[in-house]
Amino acid sequence: MAVNLPPLPALHAVPGIRLGTTRAQIRKMDRRDLVVIECSPGTKAVAVFTKNRFCAAPVSVAREHLSQTEPRALLVNTGFANAGTGSGGMDDARLTCAALAARMGCAPNQVLPFSTGVIGERLPVDKLIAGLTGSLSALSESGWEEAAHGIMTTDTLPKGSSRRVQIEGKTVTVTGIAKGAGMICPNMATLLAFIGTDAAVERDVLLQCLSAAADESFNRISVDGDTSTNDSCVLLATGKSGLEIHTAQGAAFDAFSGTVREVLAELAQAIVRDAEGATKFITIDVVQGASQADCLEVAYTIAHSPLVKTAFFASDPNWGRILAAVGRARISHLDVDRVSIYLDEVCIVRQGARAPEYSEAKGLTIMAKSEICVRIDLGGGTANARLWTCDLSHDYVTINAEYRT
Amino acid sequence: MAVNLPPLPALHAVPGIRLGTTRAQIRKMDRRDLVVIECSPGTKAVAVFTKNRFCAAPVSVAREHLSQTEPRALLVNTGFANAGTGSGGMDDARLTCAALAARMGCAPNQVLPFSTGVIGERLPVDKLIAGLTGSLSALSESGWEEAAHGIMTTDTLPKGSSRRVQIEGKTVTVTGIAKGAGMICPNMATLLAFIGTDAAVERDVLLQCLSAAADESFNRISVDGDTSTNDSCVLLATGKSGLEIHTAQGAAFDAFSGTVREVLAELAQAIVRDAEGATKFITIDVVQGASQADCLEVAYTIAHSPLVKTAFFASDPNWGRILAAVGRARISHLDVDRVSIYLDEVCIVRQGARAPEYSEAKGLTIMAKSEICVRIDLGGGTANARLWTCDLSHDYVTINAEYRT
Repeated sequence: MAVNLPPLPALHAVPGIRLGTTRAQIRKMDRRDLVVIECSPGTKAVAVFTKNRFCAAPVSVAREHLSQTEPRALLVNTGFANAGTGSGGMDDARLTCAALAARMGCAPNQVLPFSTGVIGERLPVDKLIAGLTGSLSALSESGWEEAAHGIMTTDTLPKGSSRRVQIEGKTVTVTGIAKGAGMICPNMATLLAFIGTDAAVERDVLLQCLSAAADESFNRISVDGDTSTNDSCVLLATGKSGLEIHTAQGAAFDAFSGTVREVLAELAQAIVRDAEGATKFITIDVVQGASQADCLEVAYTIAHSPLVKTAFFASDPNWGRILAAVGRARISHLDVDRVSIYLDEVCIVRQGARAPEYSEAKGLTIMAKSEICVRIDLGGGTANARLWTCDLSHDYVTINAEYRT
Repeated sequence: MAVNLPPLPALHAVPGIRLGTTRAQIRKMDRRDLVVIECSPGTKAVAVFTKNRFCAAPVSVAREHLSQTEPRALLVNTGFANAGTGSGGMDDARLTCAALAARMGCAPNQVLPFSTGVIGERLPVDKLIAGLTGSLSALSESGWEEAAHGIMTTDTLPKGSSRRVQIEGKTVTVTGIAKGAGMICPNMATLLAFIGTDAAVERDVLLQCLSAAADESFNRISVDGDTSTNDSCVLLATGKSGLEIHTAQGAAFDAFSGTVREVLAELAQAIVRDAEGATKFITIDVVQGASQADCLEVAYTIAHSPLVKTAFFASDPNWGRILAAVGRARISHLDVDRVSIYLDEVCIVRQGARAPEYSEAKGLTIMAKSEICVRIDLGGGTANARLWTCDLSHDYVTINAEYRT
């Protein structure tokens, strides 16, 4: 029941990256659940991870391996998150890396592990290792679509985005896949996104590019305010296109980083469109705030309000709930008499009170739509922030009251 | 479907306070919706109000009147909150105060107005004023129970608490009523609680007494994290018992303030037990934190997590969600390897990982109960905090997707 999420677009192959997906029966008997992403020697890799202090074992191991050497492969499983599993979980993550490294003929720390699924239960290491043969034999440059399916949990649809652009006479590809669909309030990156490109980019420039793009995409979405223990977003640059980028400025960098931003924004929005139980896709724009931090605080307070979210589910223009959320946001100063609130182009609150021209009929017309923009004008500065969220429906409760059982 | 909320206990009359309730057809045709609480001359009154910046017009007017003189009456309506109504809403609140004052022969600023209900729509002032005759003719010292019904909105049961104690040879009564049941995350007091006593207490001592009691009762509950625009908690002291308290220390003060704390705690817990859609009453204890602020932040992060709340609804010991909530709490330092998590007496996580002796069967036994205590041991200090919350059920979504329609 995703909100206006189109079918998976064509995902262009990225020279130097091959993906293999298999059914390893890790938690469910008949679903794609194990993905290997292999990258050619010399590939530069950067990543951003969750800031949840209870980060999962694979996050710790991936961060450690990435600091030591360039990776040759990513190993991704769905079913179990390998979080809250203590030192045993760390051992499990390392074991699976070593097993894949042995089969590929590389060092164990050249494998980065990623897990998603239920928290607190140990990884079935044997099943994972047994599944490696299937994933490795499936390796192909055209494996992106299968991999997009292979990393899903409660997602109803696979998510991918791809661009092929000309930069300095070179054909450059950026392709990415991601998954949601609950425990989504990324603070650094979202639960599993993998982006590949064949540009050749210096590592620090690549990281700068990823951080900026993640900050305005994955770090600007929220389904339920629950920051995951496993959020990881990886950008691989194989260099096979011949395009070389050495500094974070200039036309080539701008074109490349703009393309990366487009891909990440599309993936992030796809996650919200397919959020657990979502029936509406909500954009929250907070403008004229004293700082971006203030704008974000107001935006998240609205996005996380169960009362606002259930009103959207009901298509009820119960704007008092939005106003109350703005009023309780933890910002240092708020002049309520300067606050205006819009639903799409309809002004509902002007200068802190109901706009005279507003009518319930106008509100109902907007609320009946599946995509709605809430704009809050704080009337007190020049900063602004945008984020994307969804409503809170019966299906959200059903999905999360039944997820494990 | 309140969680173990007993029927309204006997509410002792408080000499000097009379209450009158009527059906004024303010929003619904046949329900008690207008309450007048009259207090005798010389009554000391103190109050705490919402910290939501979009506070309702009656909150602004009540605060203003209270700063000017001693009140003779409180005027309470349900149906409309008179919030987000701008200067017109302020006029409405003043008009109703003036109308009651004229009938009672007191000054308009000796009336404190309180409203609860839908935000953003104007108060039907004519209906309110027309209803005053009914409320005034019903005034009685035994009117507490009727008034407890008259302030309800989505509450399924009335809430009240009453104590009669001997202090320094005098019989002293403390009686209070309160309402919930959604937009509950009080930051100062909860949406409409009125407490009366016949002790004679200096105003600053009375305020100190109320603030302390509210801080460990109404300010320690959350249903949905949405701080209301109308939260107000008033304590009236008529002095009719003959007990006089002049300072905030000594045996008499301790006995009196202890009684007030008991009444407020009972009212606050009653609100959570009758929270919208609640099927479980959850106590969250955070202990061994670096500061009380840290403990509260962790406790609220758990209490507001939709994933934790839906797991409680499902009676699913999905403790990974609790662990993830602790991990994302906005506190400055968290040593995850020292964190332990308990459900009642069962240790689930010890030193940051699943306790070896924990079994799913043990977790299921606890989760099947209607009252559950979650204890988080941060293992890093001497501070602690307790709050009360509830689960997130289908009924919560239904109630809030249908409330206005």
